[in-house]
Amino acid sequence: MGQAGCKGLSQSLFDYKTEKYVIAKNKKVGLLYRLLQVSILTYLVVWVFLVKKGYQDTDTSLQSSIVTKVKGVTFTNTSELGERLWDVADYVIPPQGENVFFVVTNLIVTANQRQETCAESESIPDAWCYTDSDCPPGEPVVAGNGVKTGRCLRVGSMQRGTCEVFAWCPVETKPRPVKPLLGKAEDFTVYIKNFIRFPKFNFSKTNVLDTNDRAFLKSCRFGPKNPYCPIFRLGSVVSWTGSNFQEIAVQGGVIGIQIEWDCDLDKAPSECNPHYSFSRLDNKFSENSISSGYNFRFAKYYRDAAGVEFRTLMKAYGIRFDVMVNGKAGKFSLIPTVVNIGSGVALMGAGAFVCDLVLIYFIKKRHFYRDKKYEEVRATWLQGRMSRTQESPPTLDCVERGRFSLVWPPGEGRGECGAATEPADCGRIARGVS
Amino acid sequence: MGQAGCKGLSQSLFDYKTEKYVIAKNKKVGLLYRLLQVSILTYLVVWVFLVKKGYQDTDTSLQSSIVTKVKGVTFTNTSELGERLWDVADYVIPPQGENVFFVVTNLIVTANQRQETCAESESIPDAWCYTDSDCPPGEPVVAGNGVKTGRCLRVGSMQRGTCEVFAWCPVETKPRPVKPLLGKAEDFTVYIKNFIRFPKFNFSKTNVLDTNDRAFLKSCRFGPKNPYCPIFRLGSVVSWTGSNFQEIAVQGGVIGIQIEWDCDLDKAPSECNPHYSFSRLDNKFSENSISSGYNFRFAKYYRDAAGVEFRTLMKAYGIRFDVMVNGKAGKFSLIPTVVNIGSGVALMGAGAFVCDLVLIYFIKKRHFYRDKKYEEVRATWLQGRMSRTQESPPTLDCVERGRFSLVWPPGEGRGECGAATEPADCGRIARGVS
Amino acid sequence: MGQAGCKGLSQSLFDYKTEKYVIAKNKKVGLLYRLLQVSILTYLVVWVFLVKKGYQDTDTSLQSSIVTKVKGVTFTNTSELGERLWDVADYVIPPQGENVFFVVTNLIVTANQRQETCAESESIPDAWCYTDSDCPPGEPVVAGNGVKTGRCLRVGSMQRGTCEVFAWCPVETKPRPVKPLLGKAEDFTVYIKNFIRFPKFNFSKTNVLDTNDRAFLKSCRFGPKNPYCPIFRLGSVVSWTGSNFQEIAVQGGVIGIQIEWDCDLDKAPSECNPHYSFSRLDNKFSENSISSGYNFRFAKYYRDAAGVEFRTLMKAYGIRFDVMVNGKAGKFSLIPTVVNIGSGVALMGAGAFVCDLVLIYFIKKRHFYRDKKYEEVRATWLQGRMSRTQESPPTLDCVERGRFSLVWPPGEGRGECGAATEPADCGRIARGVS
Repeated sequence: MGQAGCKGLSQSLFDYKTEKYVIAKNKKVGLLYRLLQVSILTYLVVWVFLVKKGYQDTDTSLQSSIVTKVKGVTFTNTSELGERLWDVADYVIPPQGENVFFVVTNLIVTANQRQETCAESESIPDAWCYTDSDCPPGEPVVAGNGVKTGRCLRVGSMQRGTCEVFAWCPVETKPRPVKPLLGKAEDFTVYIKNFIRFPKFNFSKTNVLDTNDRAFLKSCRFGPKNPYCPIFRLGSVVSWTGSNFQEIAVQGGVIGIQIEWDCDLDKAPSECNPHYSFSRLDNKFSENSISSGYNFRFAKYYRDAAGVEFRTLMKAYGIRFDVMVNGKAGKFSLIPTVVNIGSGVALMGAGAFVCDLVLIYFIKKRHFYRDKKYEEVRATWLQGRMSRTQESPPTLDCVERGRFSLVWPPGEGRGECGAATEPADCGRIARGVS
Repeated sequence: MGQAGCKGLSQSLFDYKTEKYVIAKNKKVGLLYRLLQVSILTYLVVWVFLVKKGYQDTDTSLQSSIVTKVKGVTFTNTSELGERLWDVADYVIPPQGENVFFVVTNLIVTANQRQETCAESESIPDAWCYTDSDCPPGEPVVAGNGVKTGRCLRVGSMQRGTCEVFAWCPVETKPRPVKPLLGKAEDFTVYIKNFIRFPKFNFSKTNVLDTNDRAFLKSCRFGPKNPYCPIFRLGSVVSWTGSNFQEIAVQGGVIGIQIEWDCDLDKAPSECNPHYSFSRLDNKFSENSISSGYNFRFAKYYRDAAGVEFRTLMKAYGIRFDVMVNGKAGKFSLIPTVVNIGSGVALMGAGAFVCDLVLIYFIKKRHFYRDKKYEEVRATWLQGRMSRTQESPPTLDCVERGRFSLVWPPGEGRGECGAATEPADCGRIARGVS
Repeated sequence: MGQAGCKGLSQSLFDYKTEKYVIAKNKKVGLLYRLLQVSILTYLVVWVFLVKKGYQDTDTSLQSSIVTKVKGVTFTNTSELGERLWDVADYVIPPQGENVFFVVTNLIVTANQRQETCAESESIPDAWCYTDSDCPPGEPVVAGNGVKTGRCLRVGSMQRGTCEVFAWCPVETKPRPVKPLLGKAEDFTVYIKNFIRFPKFNFSKTNVLDTNDRAFLKSCRFGPKNPYCPIFRLGSVVSWTGSNFQEIAVQGGVIGIQIEWDCDLDKAPSECNPHYSFSRLDNKFSENSISSGYNFRFAKYYRDAAGVEFRTLMKAYGIRFDVMVNGKAGKFSLIPTVVNIGSGVALMGAGAFVCDLVLIYFIKKRHFYRDKKYEEVRATWLQGRMSRTQESPPTLDCVERGRFSLVWPPGEGRGECGAATEPADCGRIARGVS
């Protein structure tokens, strides 16, 4: 074929091939198809593009940095600790203001513990003993405070005693105070500074209004009326989770402060604002769950004049605040737009498929439409003999008629392809031999 | 229909139904279609597949573990603290080397505080008083250090004094040093070890070169020439954010160290390397913002010989480093490939739709093409009578001619489709005139 | 056109246009097409929908809150520290039970350090000296403990000494103990409480069974038989990573505890359960890597009777546990379903395209099928004269034949559609019979 083929190819390259349609003048199916088209278009425009913003590329992995600062002082006067003032350095752990911080609200203090031997706490079942043999020396007390020394200590005429242990003595025995020590922590405030960045779009923002009005940040409190003030009263935060501060203060708890950034970066950056929500994380599912509450033990270590170490053990109950940040930024992007439009278009194809099924299988005149839609062709010996190498255009016409001659009982073929009564003739005509 | 129908179905099951196309020999529309095809293909290949790697499934939720270790000592000699050497245990808070660590650069030390009464700081407006009645006993000073005792303390003949408070006394009154105490922290170094894992692909890596050359890790410094050395000089990190270390050292600040892993897991694991970037997080948006700077208070607790607790309060200014890791791993996956190819193919369909519109509505010979493209069919009573159950093949042919007969003037017609040598005859049959 | 056009439009609006198909009775291509259809359908149904749950919208950015609590005591008796009992307040750093916690297993204690001058450690190359000039005063020792004072201290007749430094003296010189101090930490347990929330679906859960059976949580241990008990024995956790506890206890290490939530929210919430996995993060890639191990230094500060500060420096080796949570929640959503079905449908189109190629270019009877599939039309001067406004339907028929007249050498045949009073004549023209 060579050059001639090339020429033919380049000519046919710019022929436009368009699908041939059969117009079925059937109002029912036409209506069905229009309905499907309208539904798909509505779905695409309203749901995918307007509601779900399907034209946007989204980024949900954000970088976040949190700085927190608690403020407030409170005064307590207990028989045990005497008059005492609590400031930030006393009750915030850890002090450095990260995204997780803990405010002490209740405390069991066991002062002046030294490494020596004493009786284990009564409340630990594994330490119960009747004779010394119940306290094998060197064995640690399960869930206890020390290592058994081998002696069973009984008070007075009590039958049951507790093992003597080598531990930080005296061991912690006091019960949890029923009234929170620092119930006034309710009025403390915390200032939460959040810096975020969406790496995919290189977009950064903070939750602090860019203001030079120092007075605003000194006096404002977050609330429904003041959603852009990042200073939160602890009591309010707890109440927004549906809990009671004085209750949670007794045995502690974990409060989640969720900051959600849902940013449409096709709009102005000033419309990208955080939304705060608050939830209690420790007893989410049942009020009396054993997993509720929050406490931990820590110690302050001292040395006496002789250089011997002693410590004050504190079991701190309190509220741990977890500031959790998550966000989503969307920005127009070609790929999701194309993917969504493309799948919408493909759906239209599926719609047409459904209508075709109806047209061909379900309506009364289905046979008629099926015959119109599908044009049956079968290659015969005739086409085997004829080939594209023949250049005379009539071939096409003739091949087409050739079918009729095969479809009709052969021999009768009067004047179908004109003079061609047999396929062989048809070939001659095709070649223009006539 | 039963068995016969089944047989027919199984026969037609493997018929290939292909869309019938009309070749419109119109160069303009053909060219338009080819242009659209080429653009879509280019978009698909270049943008979606080469640039955006649309054939990959991506994972952006990575697991990350950070270990940091600061090194360096510095010596200070101030009137207040005397000669003092600062090592890691002194200036890094918290000590355990997590992803957020703080290096003290400036310090206000208030030594030997005890729980007692003293005058509140002059700098706190709420503590200002003229008479004792300005200091209601038991009321905490707003943003202050203690609880008012009910007395107003005036120095000499000053009219305005400050309330006496019960607090950790003496209260902190010193101003922030103008010159940073630990300005030499600039030369400290931090070693950042980062382990990451992409759970979706179960791929792990660290940012530390797997080398046994201990000397390399002891002497190298991260820099443009040495991107795989995870040891950073603090001064350099700060300067890369565009800040001045000595300035930031005075009032503190937050520096983000972003580690980004952008891994193409279709390539070798050794090509998956971290990229570091540095930014200042505390005053991103305005130099003099009130939200800039970083400091917090903490205390060291002591006991005197009598067992009375006292403390040294420290207000630490310094630089908090937040090491933030994010990453994206991509690996070939069938679904996104299919989705992207599929939507590309669907787009081609949309392209054809546009060309069809042009062909049918906008070009001069639109009526001709419209007629060719759309074959109008309308089922008549004739089709009602004829059914697929008639086996004589001519029916099909006849039905086709039947259309013409409706179109042509009625009047003639000999009845048998076989006998109909002219379309006009066919028309008569169709009408059942015979 | 006006009103008439409108009426025509509204009439044709509900015409159903369906693609005209050519049925190629070619078993090979038909089979190929069916195979492609079946593969695509199988891929769509099995892989995309059943395996990959392509009908679900997924959320991988979860909010997570971790509370950890270590339990256990152990007793040590060393020449240096004497008899000592270690409890949680002693060996867990930081104490507050966050997602990253550290358990001390080995310790170098340097007690009673004071700010003064002493010889730098022999192990630091930068401190080696032969004369005083090797120790420029005021220069910090690289990777050392203090600032050089200008003197070179030599012991006895040794030629090489170390610089005198101003530091916390005496400096740390002891080697790392070969046997871990707290090897029994193997039996400690940690209780890990994890609360998660998928913000996109507002779904929350914890890893703690919602039980009131306190005994269960007091006695259970996590293991293959007990996957819902969130209490882990440290020794078991280490062994599950393939490491030996006693080895890791000597020089420390980092253990990752991965909690993975893979939740199908179309099912019951109770089927959304965490899966735990354990891995060692510090020496993932080579056993003897210099980056393995984990330790840090911290100090306890004291004051003597004269008010002078001294400290005990501790270099703590131990195991850092990083609890890392990640998860994925999926829930039925329209958009991904449509996108996946749409791209599947589009793929079917691509399959048809492949079959078309085969039909038209590769099989023996390709020319026949190509001619059937593509109906070549070209608008001529004839169509220019004829327009849709002419109402006589034969035009259509004639136009079709008109093509042939142009294909044949013009001049022959009168070619005027007007002259063809019957289709038969038209046929003659087409054949050039004239």
